[in-house]
Amino acid sequence: MKNKAYLRMLPREEAQKMWLAKLADCGYFDNVPQEDLPTGSAVDRVIATSAYARRSVPHYNSAAMDGIAVRAVDTFAASDRNPQYLTVLPGSQEFQPASCYVINTGNMLPPGTDSVIMIEHVHFTDGKAEIMAPATPWQHVRIIGEDIVEHELIMPEFDIISPAGIAALLSAGLETVPVVARPIVSVIPTGNELVSQQKQLVPGKILDVNSHMLSAAITQCSAIPLRAGIAVDNYQSIKNAIMEGLSTSDMVLINAGTSAGTEDYTYQVLADIGEVLVHGVAIKPGKPVVLSICQNIPVIGLPGYPVSAMLAFDLFVKPVLACRQKLSWQAPPTITGKLARQLPSEIGVEEYLRVSIGNVNEQPTIVPLGRGAGVISSLMRAHGVLKVDEGTAGLPAGSTVSVDLFDKQSLQRQSLLAIGSHDLSLDILGLHLRRQGNVNLSCANVGSAGGVMAIRNGEAQLAGVHILDEATGQYNVSYLRKYLAGRQWRLVHLAQREQGLMIEKNNPHNITSVVDLVRPGIQIVNRQRGAGTRMLLDYLLKGQAIDPQMISGYEKEVGTHMAVAATIVAGAANAGMGIRAAADIMGLDFIPVAWEQYDLIVAMDGDQLFSLLISVLKSDKFRHDVESLGGYDLSNAGTVIAENTGV
Amino acid sequence: MKNKAYLRMLPREEAQKMWLAKLADCGYFDNVPQEDLPTGSAVDRVIATSAYARRSVPHYNSAAMDGIAVRAVDTFAASDRNPQYLTVLPGSQEFQPASCYVINTGNMLPPGTDSVIMIEHVHFTDGKAEIMAPATPWQHVRIIGEDIVEHELIMPEFDIISPAGIAALLSAGLETVPVVARPIVSVIPTGNELVSQQKQLVPGKILDVNSHMLSAAITQCSAIPLRAGIAVDNYQSIKNAIMEGLSTSDMVLINAGTSAGTEDYTYQVLADIGEVLVHGVAIKPGKPVVLSICQNIPVIGLPGYPVSAMLAFDLFVKPVLACRQKLSWQAPPTITGKLARQLPSEIGVEEYLRVSIGNVNEQPTIVPLGRGAGVISSLMRAHGVLKVDEGTAGLPAGSTVSVDLFDKQSLQRQSLLAIGSHDLSLDILGLHLRRQGNVNLSCANVGSAGGVMAIRNGEAQLAGVHILDEATGQYNVSYLRKYLAGRQWRLVHLAQREQGLMIEKNNPHNITSVVDLVRPGIQIVNRQRGAGTRMLLDYLLKGQAIDPQMISGYEKEVGTHMAVAATIVAGAANAGMGIRAAADIMGLDFIPVAWEQYDLIVAMDGDQLFSLLISVLKSDKFRHDVESLGGYDLSNAGTVIAENTGV
Repeated sequence: MKNKAYLRMLPREEAQKMWLAKLADCGYFDNVPQEDLPTGSAVDRVIATSAYARRSVPHYNSAAMDGIAVRAVDTFAASDRNPQYLTVLPGSQEFQPASCYVINTGNMLPPGTDSVIMIEHVHFTDGKAEIMAPATPWQHVRIIGEDIVEHELIMPEFDIISPAGIAALLSAGLETVPVVARPIVSVIPTGNELVSQQKQLVPGKILDVNSHMLSAAITQCSAIPLRAGIAVDNYQSIKNAIMEGLSTSDMVLINAGTSAGTEDYTYQVLADIGEVLVHGVAIKPGKPVVLSICQNIPVIGLPGYPVSAMLAFDLFVKPVLACRQKLSWQAPPTITGKLARQLPSEIGVEEYLRVSIGNVNEQPTIVPLGRGAGVISSLMRAHGVLKVDEGTAGLPAGSTVSVDLFDKQSLQRQSLLAIGSHDLSLDILGLHLRRQGNVNLSCANVGSAGGVMAIRNGEAQLAGVHILDEATGQYNVSYLRKYLAGRQWRLVHLAQREQGLMIEKNNPHNITSVVDLVRPGIQIVNRQRGAGTRMLLDYLLKGQAIDPQMISGYEKEVGTHMAVAATIVAGAANAGMGIRAAADIMGLDFIPVAWEQYDLIVAMDGDQLFSLLISVLKSDKFRHDVESLGGYDLSNAGTVIAENTGV
Repeated sequence: MKNKAYLRMLPREEAQKMWLAKLADCGYFDNVPQEDLPTGSAVDRVIATSAYARRSVPHYNSAAMDGIAVRAVDTFAASDRNPQYLTVLPGSQEFQPASCYVINTGNMLPPGTDSVIMIEHVHFTDGKAEIMAPATPWQHVRIIGEDIVEHELIMPEFDIISPAGIAALLSAGLETVPVVARPIVSVIPTGNELVSQQKQLVPGKILDVNSHMLSAAITQCSAIPLRAGIAVDNYQSIKNAIMEGLSTSDMVLINAGTSAGTEDYTYQVLADIGEVLVHGVAIKPGKPVVLSICQNIPVIGLPGYPVSAMLAFDLFVKPVLACRQKLSWQAPPTITGKLARQLPSEIGVEEYLRVSIGNVNEQPTIVPLGRGAGVISSLMRAHGVLKVDEGTAGLPAGSTVSVDLFDKQSLQRQSLLAIGSHDLSLDILGLHLRRQGNVNLSCANVGSAGGVMAIRNGEAQLAGVHILDEATGQYNVSYLRKYLAGRQWRLVHLAQREQGLMIEKNNPHNITSVVDLVRPGIQIVNRQRGAGTRMLLDYLLKGQAIDPQMISGYEKEVGTHMAVAATIVAGAANAGMGIRAAADIMGLDFIPVAWEQYDLIVAMDGDQLFSLLISVLKSDKFRHDVESLGGYDLSNAGTVIAENTGV
């Protein structure tokens, strides 16, 4: 059970540079394979060799105007006082001196003629065309090659073929075009615990989703993914899979088997059949990356956690696929904003944090999401990645930071940021805001108190709150008046919702109230500090004079109602406070305790956004969608309960 | 031969707004078709309905660390002074009190256990595990649903599915995913002059390239193009094609048949079978656009010139396809720079000008390209489009303007801008600069004098020049000392090249020198004012005391050596001055006149770029590629002839 040491932990930049340089040295970016495509099908592909015109455009001399085609010398004497008369010939008849043809724009200039007189300057009379001014030779004629000259360079090698480029290539007589072939990238999932089908999924097994995720990322790099079967954790199986990959592909990815654990054969295989350049990069997450070259083909071991795998893919696979295809390296789009919370970080490691982004006071606000490398949901919710340099111990809240965006699409939508208490209705609010106003709602669940702080610090535009003032029995208002005195805000009612104890199906431990939580053998799951639901539990315990420290599991914190329910379903707790809707959805029993008031603090500039919000909250559709979850009453949703002008 | 009047010429913004509003009114953006895809194949697609988790992730309680799985209550008494000993059971054996199992990260927690103690804190001895500290229940256990909770919203409708999204959807048990279907767009080419095959191309016919260009643009909008056969110019044929399109597609484009000409039936057909909303938009180029709705499907008539068609596509097709697919409207990336030349413009029309962009003194410089709507080559060479407002009569040189870029790719490369005299070696220089340094060379051909002016105004980094000082017989240097006195520049030699008279193959008019150009019946083609080649002709004529005004065609100007040659090949001229290489390539005869010196004025900041340039100019490969054109001598290419420090 001893770990192998990493070869040497390289800084990220050094690893990237060395990796690309080594691949360049072994000729990986030269003489790349190409293929011929019908020109019409080549959009967005990279042209492999410079294209020269095979014919001129236009390919015949043609009229640039509607009018008559004439021989200029026949017109030289024409003037206002001395009109000339040209015989109008039918197109079929041969040219004779002092005659002309009627001609439309684009028609071929008939033999014998060399200029066009605009129709507006011609008067037709008796089969003759009367003209009052001379024509100069070749006037209003588009001459062969005016647009493209035969033999001319029309597209240099490695240009990306645009729709206009297709028009130019076809016009210039190129019916097919040589393009850089898309690289084929093998993806080898490894691990005894992996299964490929949902139906094979039993406890102890996990579904291979990474190979699908990586294949999609490969597709986005204009390359072709080739998913191999799952290789089991032994030397020979992994070696066989890699050899197969080398024989069919331009690059091989292995996932995972790259950390220094006991069952990790990838490194050994690669060291035996090729050259391992890097084993371990000083980044977090994603440290256990293996970069190697086998048979002049890059073979990359990616970490097993999805978040780490994607980060390593972006750093070490994307640039290689770009160079191989002669695509310029595309730096991701970035956005600069204000960090919503303090961010501790480890010195000596470059850390990449997923963040969510909202617009507060016209300024992007950057909210760090969960850190766990395995947390798929945060990777998916994230708008981008914040890099914290290896020399930095952390960043204070309010720092100006730059974030690499995953895509531009999300930022095209107006973004609202909600930081505060979690409620299921926020998901539904998000859907309706998007439908009705194309507005994106991002949520961070930090509890009611955290929400009030976020509004106070100008970090969020919305905060869900449900804080009972024990003295007055009133919700939220007194708390806000106290902590948000100097701020501008409105408090908008969202719902009355039913809180209570979620307990196991059919109540096997016979729990009837919070008093039972203190019984030996009863384990609870709690919400995080600052959550209104936790405050409610504390209030109830206080009423019964129960010391929370006597309750097993009181310290076990999760962040949402659904997570409380899931923990009970998993058998890791017998009870927990939460809303009826979560208990209903998860098939748990529920002991009602109280209806409470869940409101939104709103601190936003735009009246338009505020109107949209109110209109959604008051809509029948929204009310219906939320109330059908159970345990909700939205009769007064959208009512402004209180406001503060900020002075 | 009278023109139909346009319905009403609408301003662009009004037309766009009305168009999208009308389509929204008729429900075109609601309940759009969807299709189910295997989740792994859905990258970059738009999810059609919100996705909720079908199972939790993780789906079983598992060890978060390597260690031993224990029942926490068995460990409560453990301390340094009071170690506890747990019997290590094999995995197959049922749990008993005071026992444990060895467990690896990710393994299922065995029934009966509820916590994990890290391997580092365990001492194995005699089949027993010795522990010195108590475990709390559920420590180091990943509980069911820790990442994703069953029934939770994992992706809201209309999100674009990313690789991480695929991982989340698959993990949550969704093997297929409903996505918004790609719209099918019919493209109907119309026109009696059109042919679809290169081999059908005879004078008077033109190749249908627009339908391929538009299909490529449709593909770029994530839609599916459906190219129809060419419809001839009559009412019934066009109507049939449109009816067929309506029965198979989500949108129909007709190209062209939209101007108010005599053979334009599109408008009439659309007015008869649907509602024409717009006929004519106040933009240039692209005025004759028809926007109509037939059977609740948008049918759009696009202008025939490729440049106009693409502009109208961007303005009136792209946004509709984005909305229909629930993609946010993506404003094109923009860049701000300095206008290189004065730009006159027509008041009352919004003008869209293709421009090329270079970096001069770290600042983007915007060079307007040709205006002709039919000029494919300029559309292809362009980096972006400059919009001149309808209220503007023109823009002075040096104005700060914003340009919509066609793609970001071109700007990722470093860009060098050459404005000046044209030479075929510049194309080859561009290829080598890209190969050796990934640098993009953009050229504008304005003649030697124009090049000197461009350097003087800080508009270009390079300028090709060949200006003979008649007094000294020296090339370029004296001219530069005079006109670029206060500037910083270096003059780098490129080539000696052979100038002469290009004449028709086999010299049917028996031309032997410039003296023959004045003969009756001889027609020439000339280069533009300011071109060194034109100055050479003037110098030769002056030597023979010939008045240029006596030469037929002296006023007919084209911009490049190849265009001069093409004009002669086309039969529109009998002779013209130019370089031997162009005559050779185009199969013309050539009467040598002089070897002249073609140099580059270089005015650039970066030493790195300058070194790259010199290294390319001095390379054997470059010399070989240029000299093999004929009429070139590059023995001294890359030599710095003169320089000015600017003070």
